[in-house]
Amino acid sequence: MSLADHHKILFEPVAIGPKILRNRFYNVPHGTAYGVLRPSTWASYRAVRAEGGWAAVSAEFSSVGPSSDEFPLHSSDIWDDEDGRRHKLMVDSVHRHGALAGIELHHGGAHAMRRVSREPAFSASGLAPELPPPAGPLGTPKVMTVDDIERIEQAFADAAVRARDVGYDIVEVLAGYGYLFAQFLSTFHNRRTDEYGGSLENRARFWLETLGRVRDAVGDDCAIATRLSIETQGPWGHSIDDSVALVRMADPLVDLWDLNVGSVLDWGSDISPSRVIPEGRNLELFARVRQATKKPVVGVSRWTSPDLMAQAVRSGVIDIVGSARQSIADPFFPQKVREGRIEDIRECMGINHCISSLDRGNMTCAQNATAGEEYRRGWHPERFEPLSRPDVSVLVVGAGPAGMEAAIGLAKRGADMVHLVDSVDQLGGHLGPVVRLPGLREWGRFIDHRMIQIDKLPNLQFIPSTRLSADDVRDYGASHVVVATGARWLGTGLTPGTHEPLQGVVEGASWVFTPDELLVRGKRPAEKSHVTVYDAEGGYMGTSIAQLLADEGYKVSVVTPHSQVAAEGDLTLEGPAVRASLHSSGVAMYREVSLTSARPEGVIGVGEFDQPFSLKSDALVLVTMRSPIDDLYQELTIDREALHEAGIEAVYCIGDALSPRPLAEAMFDGHRLAVPGHDIGSGEPG
Amino acid sequence: MSLADHHKILFEPVAIGPKILRNRFYNVPHGTAYGVLRPSTWASYRAVRAEGGWAAVSAEFSSVGPSSDEFPLHSSDIWDDEDGRRHKLMVDSVHRHGALAGIELHHGGAHAMRRVSREPAFSASGLAPELPPPAGPLGTPKVMTVDDIERIEQAFADAAVRARDVGYDIVEVLAGYGYLFAQFLSTFHNRRTDEYGGSLENRARFWLETLGRVRDAVGDDCAIATRLSIETQGPWGHSIDDSVALVRMADPLVDLWDLNVGSVLDWGSDISPSRVIPEGRNLELFARVRQATKKPVVGVSRWTSPDLMAQAVRSGVIDIVGSARQSIADPFFPQKVREGRIEDIRECMGINHCISSLDRGNMTCAQNATAGEEYRRGWHPERFEPLSRPDVSVLVVGAGPAGMEAAIGLAKRGADMVHLVDSVDQLGGHLGPVVRLPGLREWGRFIDHRMIQIDKLPNLQFIPSTRLSADDVRDYGASHVVVATGARWLGTGLTPGTHEPLQGVVEGASWVFTPDELLVRGKRPAEKSHVTVYDAEGGYMGTSIAQLLADEGYKVSVVTPHSQVAAEGDLTLEGPAVRASLHSSGVAMYREVSLTSARPEGVIGVGEFDQPFSLKSDALVLVTMRSPIDDLYQELTIDREALHEAGIEAVYCIGDALSPRPLAEAMFDGHRLAVPGHDIGSGEPG
Repeated sequence: MSLADHHKILFEPVAIGPKILRNRFYNVPHGTAYGVLRPSTWASYRAVRAEGGWAAVSAEFSSVGPSSDEFPLHSSDIWDDEDGRRHKLMVDSVHRHGALAGIELHHGGAHAMRRVSREPAFSASGLAPELPPPAGPLGTPKVMTVDDIERIEQAFADAAVRARDVGYDIVEVLAGYGYLFAQFLSTFHNRRTDEYGGSLENRARFWLETLGRVRDAVGDDCAIATRLSIETQGPWGHSIDDSVALVRMADPLVDLWDLNVGSVLDWGSDISPSRVIPEGRNLELFARVRQATKKPVVGVSRWTSPDLMAQAVRSGVIDIVGSARQSIADPFFPQKVREGRIEDIRECMGINHCISSLDRGNMTCAQNATAGEEYRRGWHPERFEPLSRPDVSVLVVGAGPAGMEAAIGLAKRGADMVHLVDSVDQLGGHLGPVVRLPGLREWGRFIDHRMIQIDKLPNLQFIPSTRLSADDVRDYGASHVVVATGARWLGTGLTPGTHEPLQGVVEGASWVFTPDELLVRGKRPAEKSHVTVYDAEGGYMGTSIAQLLADEGYKVSVVTPHSQVAAEGDLTLEGPAVRASLHSSGVAMYREVSLTSARPEGVIGVGEFDQPFSLKSDALVLVTMRSPIDDLYQELTIDREALHEAGIEAVYCIGDALSPRPLAEAMFDGHRLAVPGHDIGSGEPG
Repeated sequence: MSLADHHKILFEPVAIGPKILRNRFYNVPHGTAYGVLRPSTWASYRAVRAEGGWAAVSAEFSSVGPSSDEFPLHSSDIWDDEDGRRHKLMVDSVHRHGALAGIELHHGGAHAMRRVSREPAFSASGLAPELPPPAGPLGTPKVMTVDDIERIEQAFADAAVRARDVGYDIVEVLAGYGYLFAQFLSTFHNRRTDEYGGSLENRARFWLETLGRVRDAVGDDCAIATRLSIETQGPWGHSIDDSVALVRMADPLVDLWDLNVGSVLDWGSDISPSRVIPEGRNLELFARVRQATKKPVVGVSRWTSPDLMAQAVRSGVIDIVGSARQSIADPFFPQKVREGRIEDIRECMGINHCISSLDRGNMTCAQNATAGEEYRRGWHPERFEPLSRPDVSVLVVGAGPAGMEAAIGLAKRGADMVHLVDSVDQLGGHLGPVVRLPGLREWGRFIDHRMIQIDKLPNLQFIPSTRLSADDVRDYGASHVVVATGARWLGTGLTPGTHEPLQGVVEGASWVFTPDELLVRGKRPAEKSHVTVYDAEGGYMGTSIAQLLADEGYKVSVVTPHSQVAAEGDLTLEGPAVRASLHSSGVAMYREVSLTSARPEGVIGVGEFDQPFSLKSDALVLVTMRSPIDDLYQELTIDREALHEAGIEAVYCIGDALSPRPLAEAMFDGHRLAVPGHDIGSGEPG
């Protein structure tokens, strides 16, 4: 295996001002929620990306001062030297692996939350921020005086010096995402009549002056970059033509352009879910801007394919491949491309678990269990510590996310034998049929990656189409047994909010369906039926099934007790697109409605204020709650003596069979079992 | 001034197990969001409450281990000795002021978020948590085995030992709010068929065993308490009769009962907004439980009146007054009662700014600017550092929240003269008419407290009914001028989401109203009109006006572009009650509707999916955005020379005149100006 000819272009060095990128892979600024609070977690997370071959690794957005205080989440502030010391930990760890370290200097302007600093918010023209409460700050921001502008320009320069002094190689000025400079650039926020408003030149002045100051301050030592959102999905940005002009204006001041799209109100444009936006979609926008600069351009576009990346570079549209999510899913992406190990790449699925977990305060990944665990648990995405006692034979029952991940981990650690057994003929467990839901094709990358790894591991065998009883397990000859038999959807209508079955529902009746019946067993309501989907869970399943059935020609209604349809989808940035798609497919949506009973002719419930609700329908799909399938585990563990006689040292239960959770957590469970020191059960294999 | 006879009962000591409370004021466990992340902020915040005379000061809920990981917010974990060291800082600081230190040991069970630990959630019977996504965790929790129960009991005992070892005097076991023990107590979660489920005795077993273990571990050294939610507003709790029985069962194991109401889905029952629940409302519930125990009982009920507190104790229903919010608003409440300085008490308004800011990651208070600033800014609620140069004469223009707070602070610091001037005849600024909105009467405490302080300060003079021009200000004879002239509501229909006036709106037309016109100038639509209230702000104003007009007999509709009516109210726990009240008053509510034009006959807009929306109405109230009234400040500061000639050394702009924000922030602005080192403008008075 070696670097493919058509990928060689990706490994050419690129000069950016006084620095040289060792290749064309740039791990662009992205949030982790580690920075402020957990400097070692943060440094180790970034270091592993440097180790994996990225030419540059950037810190997330770093606020320059208290008027852009973003505590407690997300920002890695660089207000003073104490902050600087924390940054140095990260910079040094990145340098140790030969990568350049970047920082993205940030000011939120009208969007800054200032929870602790309690400064007034800054703005171009005193217009309230577009992000509504409770997500955005309530109130009207202060109009920046020329003195304020001067002070903030100096704060950027000071922060740049601080960054240079702790060793940063690349200093970016954030002029995107609807934050302070973007607010000045856009007439949506900027109505000034002084030299900082009016013409595009005037609106750009604050940004250009800041870039100039930063360049004067550290331009001899650092590469100067700026991140520009060249298009947004609402009135709050500026046109692509303006972007072309802006690039021309700022070009002499920068060594590197970092281009993207979107804003605080359309994050989904930038952090695009795979079900909504295809890989590489931004390329034609970048092409528009390319004409305006000869400086190196880094662009992001949910890239996961080295072929597409190389093609984008060859086309001349971008010079450097920007990536956040692919680096989360596979920190060793560049190294794998260089070694020609394309098949080993853990491709990002674009399911946006990262952004939803980040917004909850700790970024994790549904493909890569080790993301964020490099320091705290000492996990490495590629290296597995050998088992202290490799003479184990492990039987993993269930080849879903948890089972696959555990089996691969144990095999990589050198277990003599790992057998991964499933009752169906394919890997993937519950995820197999999920992948066929509308828009979820790329979720299949979870299975694909593991299928290839399983193929490659000589000590790991997948045994399909084999249902094992407790007796079978005991007779199997394994020293350790891992039960990963997954979960089932309840057919009773019991919801998290009621904890009681839905009155009138007859489990298994011809008019009652669960996701399992529809997706696994392929059942369907009669043609042209009106189907009510009751989504009392709030994850991807309810609305995906509604879309599936609508696509198949059913008349579909979604009823949810939650205050929003696809509630969890608003954290994965899929919600708005999911709802818009359902709406345009003719799906009726009812929120804050709790069903109280169901019959073959329809459903009855109550609304937000206990007002009566009823809906005629011919079929009911219950997406309410999952229950673990743990009979095998219970049967095995109830008879400890029989286990002992069978030579089985330990039995573990992992994944949804232990506790049905989102994909990332089920997979994590499998990983945790396979690596040292974090077993779930009563002891660790090996 | 001295302790009133009828308050003397509040200062009797109370024995609780091996400890003695010096009086009957117990600062009960409540979150701050400081604990995990900022131990010094946390210790100093608690210490000031101890200094203010509370007999005991408790830490917030403290998780006992990774299966109840609540990072990054709220919990002050006590998992290990390193956590213990952090707690010691707080305990020592509380002890220094002669108070007992308490800790509330916590396990979230099915509600624990486990973002970082990523353990499976624990539960009685594997029923999904009732708190919907994205607030609650997605998935189905693990059914606790008897081994799990054993391990968690031991975790509580271990945490208790850790707490004892760092000096805690009171160890509470949290059995309320729908968390782990409450889940076992309630049949909503507990369907077990073993000795931990079924009868109330069985459901209580886990809690009782844990209490027993904690008692065995530290009962000789610490007072053992347990916090029980004796009633909830949904099916997820248990009956008050059960509560009586539970108190009987656990009574031998505790030295102190900490009683409250509510759960994760009805926090508003416990952290009750003043507009919904009157002070002392829990007393009759406590009376029911009182019969079951002779042990001391602490109860919370949004107490703010020492008279009601003393009466509650005299009645025998409670022995100890529990308080969280009153201690936030006035840490020196007990001392002020003891000294007979009732009029100096800064009463909690029950507006729940605390809980909304806590949920955003940093608890602050709308009455007390110093809450949470004791360490970081070194602020003290009662002590004001004398001005280094007291020979200043300060003119404060505008007697709203910011102006009052600044004037009082500067007068307390010893300024020679402070004149607080307003164009109207009353203190309070915008808050004056707000207080007359339905349910907001107690917001008037903000004004009342400051009115009394202003009366008491000989160097502070309120000058009513005086409108000052720039010339007047220059001629006033002040050395320092503070402009606190507030804000106005826009009459154009410009919203944060559009930044454009609403098409068709004629400012000042007979059918167009703003909150100012309705509340300040007393205008009204014609009788029996249908009024559309367009709430594009999301704070209390839009829905309060809708309620006011509905109460006055108008037919009212609320239209909001937000995904929820009273969006901010969901953080202050007012949202559900506000919406229910509007609904029962016949107010129609339309959410996710952006208006595009308005005419005297009605409004036109678009819905979530750009579908057309129209509504007939006769009048339109625009609650969209506030704009600062800063003409005076601009006029004054544009002519620096004239200021100099007038002997004015500095002019400051504070509060809504600088940047219209929520009450807490406007007030904070005034405070910040008045104390050392935190001036907003170009220099600091004095």
